[in-house]
Amino acid sequence: EGRRARPAETMWRIGLAFGLGVALEALLGWLLKRRRASSSTAIEVIFFPSKVTCTEELLAGVPCVCPLPHGESALSRLLVRVLEARRSLDLCFFAFSSPQLGRAVLLLHSRGVRVRLVIDSDYMALRGSQIGPLRRAGIPVRHDQDRGYMHHKFAIVDKKVLITGSLNWTTQAIQTNQENVLVVEDQALVNIFVAEFEKIWENYNPANYTFFSKHEKTGIENA
Amino acid sequence: EGRRARPAETMWRIGLAFGLGVALEALLGWLLKRRRASSSTAIEVIFFPSKVTCTEELLAGVPCVCPLPHGESALSRLLVRVLEARRSLDLCFFAFSSPQLGRAVLLLHSRGVRVRLVIDSDYMALRGSQIGPLRRAGIPVRHDQDRGYMHHKFAIVDKKVLITGSLNWTTQAIQTNQENVLVVEDQALVNIFVAEFEKIWENYNPANYTFFSKHEKTGIENA
Repeated sequence: EGRRARPAETMWRIGLAFGLGVALEALLGWLLKRRRASSSTAIEVIFFPSKVTCTEELLAGVPCVCPLPHGESALSRLLVRVLEARRSLDLCFFAFSSPQLGRAVLLLHSRGVRVRLVIDSDYMALRGSQIGPLRRAGIPVRHDQDRGYMHHKFAIVDKKVLITGSLNWTTQAIQTNQENVLVVEDQALVNIFVAEFEKIWENYNPANYTFFSKHEKTGIENA
Repeated sequence: EGRRARPAETMWRIGLAFGLGVALEALLGWLLKRRRASSSTAIEVIFFPSKVTCTEELLAGVPCVCPLPHGESALSRLLVRVLEARRSLDLCFFAFSSPQLGRAVLLLHSRGVRVRLVIDSDYMALRGSQIGPLRRAGIPVRHDQDRGYMHHKFAIVDKKVLITGSLNWTTQAIQTNQENVLVVEDQALVNIFVAEFEKIWENYNPANYTFFSKHEKTGIENA
């Protein structure tokens, strides 16, 4: 009537069965995790206008004691994400005149990050345009010469993070406009924008320029 | 020496052990799936300029035999996503003059979809602006009266899908500009934009209007 000790063979079989179940679980969990990883997406939203804050510490790397507020702002959050670039920064903007973002791009360039910039030809000579300083520092800049606008407003950081939205990189937009910026980590999406950037970069190759027959007012010499 | 048939009790134990393993797997798989579902994100990208195609079938619901091409285009893809609205459509645009998108919004309004529109005051009287027809149809429209621009370009469909990017809803932008639009299904992100829309909607409540002291050129009567 009393239970006898199980023979070793039976113990071994029970252990094997349990192990098979766990192995099946581990395999399925790994497959699920792989699917999750391949479709994992993180999106940060930054709304503007930004309050005016001091961004010297971000850009100069040393604490600043100027009278401006020193907390976080929409601009400082955007700068942080741009400054994360370590290998490449591809910029595609309708207008670019923000001195802080200009300094951030120059800083990355000086660190050896490969920067490329596409800009709309009608707005590259905007008051305060950063195109001149960026070109003088050796950053390659290309622009459209179409009737339509190059109206994108996106940046690609290290071919891994997409920064896109309604915001042109101008002080007016940053400080006074209602704007949104998405910072998207999604490799499939980023790859699509990388391909779009490369296509535009090739389309706007200076070898194809027709010397501004239609856009003389915005010649390269004004930038 | 020969193996004996296992007693029923041992078989039962082996089955139980295997079952426990499988149950553990199912539980973990379910938890993983739940985590995936709660962070699931789908993003469609639409680049412009759009080729010109006939959109009558989408907007009128009957096949069209006009000489325009009848295939898919960036504009038709955008229209399809907008026309999916069944309950609400919240629009927040710097400029809105596309007749096709205007018709799509009127169609949704006539189906009982709750449409609300926020627009920049400086651009609401743009040539071909859709604001007048939409207002006359009974769609509530609000606008800023700030010095800065209401520069967003987003739509929220049924509080579930966010359509956002660089594209203003104008024919010039659709047909001639380099533009991007993201169609994002991500409830956490959409909720953030819903909150932003509601904040702007309240800020631009007509009860707060100061009768265009600074912006007389763009008075409501021109829209």
